[in-house]
Amino acid sequence: MKQLILLAATALLALAATAAVSETTLPGAAGPTIQPDRSITFKLKAPEARTVQVAGGDGLGAGPFDMTKGADGVWTVTTPPAVPGFHYYWFNLDGVRVNDPTSRTYIGYGLETSAIEIPEPGADYYELRDVPHGAVRDQWYFSKVTGRWRHAVVYTPPGYDANIKTRYPLLILQHGRGEDETGWTRQGRAQFILDNLIAAGRALPMIVVMDRGYALKDETPVPDTMDYTRSAFAAFENVVLHELIPTVDAAYRTIPDRDHRAMAGLSMGGMQTLFISLHHPEAFAYVANLSGPIVPDLRGPRSTDQGFHDRFDSKTAFEGAFADSASFNKKFKLFWMGVGTQEPAVFRDTIGGAVRTLQAAGVKVVYFESQGTAHEWQTWRRDFNDLAPRLFR
Amino acid sequence: MKQLILLAATALLALAATAAVSETTLPGAAGPTIQPDRSITFKLKAPEARTVQVAGGDGLGAGPFDMTKGADGVWTVTTPPAVPGFHYYWFNLDGVRVNDPTSRTYIGYGLETSAIEIPEPGADYYELRDVPHGAVRDQWYFSKVTGRWRHAVVYTPPGYDANIKTRYPLLILQHGRGEDETGWTRQGRAQFILDNLIAAGRALPMIVVMDRGYALKDETPVPDTMDYTRSAFAAFENVVLHELIPTVDAAYRTIPDRDHRAMAGLSMGGMQTLFISLHHPEAFAYVANLSGPIVPDLRGPRSTDQGFHDRFDSKTAFEGAFADSASFNKKFKLFWMGVGTQEPAVFRDTIGGAVRTLQAAGVKVVYFESQGTAHEWQTWRRDFNDLAPRLFR
Repeated sequence: MKQLILLAATALLALAATAAVSETTLPGAAGPTIQPDRSITFKLKAPEARTVQVAGGDGLGAGPFDMTKGADGVWTVTTPPAVPGFHYYWFNLDGVRVNDPTSRTYIGYGLETSAIEIPEPGADYYELRDVPHGAVRDQWYFSKVTGRWRHAVVYTPPGYDANIKTRYPLLILQHGRGEDETGWTRQGRAQFILDNLIAAGRALPMIVVMDRGYALKDETPVPDTMDYTRSAFAAFENVVLHELIPTVDAAYRTIPDRDHRAMAGLSMGGMQTLFISLHHPEAFAYVANLSGPIVPDLRGPRSTDQGFHDRFDSKTAFEGAFADSASFNKKFKLFWMGVGTQEPAVFRDTIGGAVRTLQAAGVKVVYFESQGTAHEWQTWRRDFNDLAPRLFR
Repeated sequence: MKQLILLAATALLALAATAAVSETTLPGAAGPTIQPDRSITFKLKAPEARTVQVAGGDGLGAGPFDMTKGADGVWTVTTPPAVPGFHYYWFNLDGVRVNDPTSRTYIGYGLETSAIEIPEPGADYYELRDVPHGAVRDQWYFSKVTGRWRHAVVYTPPGYDANIKTRYPLLILQHGRGEDETGWTRQGRAQFILDNLIAAGRALPMIVVMDRGYALKDETPVPDTMDYTRSAFAAFENVVLHELIPTVDAAYRTIPDRDHRAMAGLSMGGMQTLFISLHHPEAFAYVANLSGPIVPDLRGPRSTDQGFHDRFDSKTAFEGAFADSASFNKKFKLFWMGVGTQEPAVFRDTIGGAVRTLQAAGVKVVYFESQGTAHEWQTWRRDFNDLAPRLFR
């Protein structure tokens, strides 16, 4: 018995010595603990609750996971080892979805949502490191399209304030559905990825603008119907071309031409990137779609609207943007597509299918697969780390 | 019966026509509604819950308020008319404090917390208006005091990027306990207050830095003991003088001398302002305490430590900083104190008492009372609108 207690105590000590706290935990809070095998122990004090579960993003595992109540009224569960990266999660407290009071929250699913950050061994490219840092700023501008003030987030590279004669290329970088303009910096750490790449001489200094991807009526997230998506994207296209770019060109030292302008986006933001940039080659020379499912005929007549699919005809898709591959290759200096190997078929198959079809037709596509990651931020961080060095070369 | 239904429908229509949604409600969400009399109707869907209450900041009323379950499983309550301004709130769901899923969250009480914004009739000084806007930026710096990267928020005034030869005075502006460096911009709207004042020619363009007011160990909020407060403030003083100011002076075009430097803070931040600036007149010429309760001997020997009190001796308080009123008046170009008339006695009496004692002793104090507001952001917005025009004159 004594030996057993000793053994248990040793095990607990070992656990305490190695279990980590997530960077997303509020300072001073006793948040979930991450074990070395990447299993996670979640806790919620709810003495009167009858059932409590934890549920979350794909990288967290299958879930939801039932939690067990202790004598102290604290419900706990240790989930199976999670995939590295940033995962949203929440508790189902007697059927009500609630956040973990110990966690910072992030806009996901259109809601303030708790999240956990599972470190990836050896990956420090998205860490805040001791290198020169760019600035992340708020940018407000009044939109005639929406009749409202809009909020965008702007990254200016290290040295921007000091090198007052230097002008920079511009990347428009868009979030996915249910997230917002803060996603790429708060969840994605795009500013740290760029700081690190620029410090290493691997990426060119650039200005990045991350805009709110909703521009219909009250700027609510886009519902999943093709009709609504079409009109929502058209409104956003108006904002990007006629309001966002002129605002940024006026307020920052950009090089205001297509050869120094890129558009990229993840998921819905990738769909928007294809929708806008392939139709407006006069505005962009660099195009990247990160996990955006392919809808080849969103601008076409409604009768042909088939939604997401991998029956990609390189002659007709996107109104024939790829029909003449030589012309396309000349016009676009980079056409980049990426997807995580653990993403659902609607992403993996439509993107992979389009890439194969386009490459067979002679279109130059840089294709990047993120191994073992889902439709989550770790995929898009890796994507961005691959993409940014290729821009404006 | 028909008439009754018609009457009810008319009443509902009238309500719909006039009830407002809070600016803090997430886009697309059906958040709490604010009636013209400033009563608020809160809702939470929780079919299985046994008791649900809404509770919150002082301006919301006495509370907590019991909610009533409808046949659809939605709990509702309409609270009494609220004071205008920004109020934190939360639900007690079978005893567990949870956020309103329809609300954006803000760091308050050390937690992500829901909030509601009740417009003040006629007050547009803190609105985002069509005037030139300054920039709000993230600033990271590594602290030897804490051994960590610290995050501050910096406001640069309109024209900062264009007027590259112009240097500006610096205001250090601090949040209260349980809040963080994002409070003054997200809850307080300090950037819009300044934009509007500068556009009207009422305040001088200035740089504002809002730092995280915690600098002990893991940067957790400061517990309410004088011993801990003393050491926490001393650590923060070190950060401000030896890390924050040098960082800002290096990264931004400040005028790096005491005559062009101010420190101000609310509540705990006001205590910190007095603690630091009265001890370091070589660093600051402008000092403002917004609702910071008075602890006249926090630096004194521990045996005399009496905590907050209004027995304020102008000769000995703050190590004799006020003992020679003529010298004090010459040294400090502005000494500003403010409090809301609805704040608890620990704020109202200690601040009001100190002001009366100091004024009787010949110390020049600008004293500002916010009528009808509590220990909440509407007090501090009004404070800042009064204070900012007096800085650097």
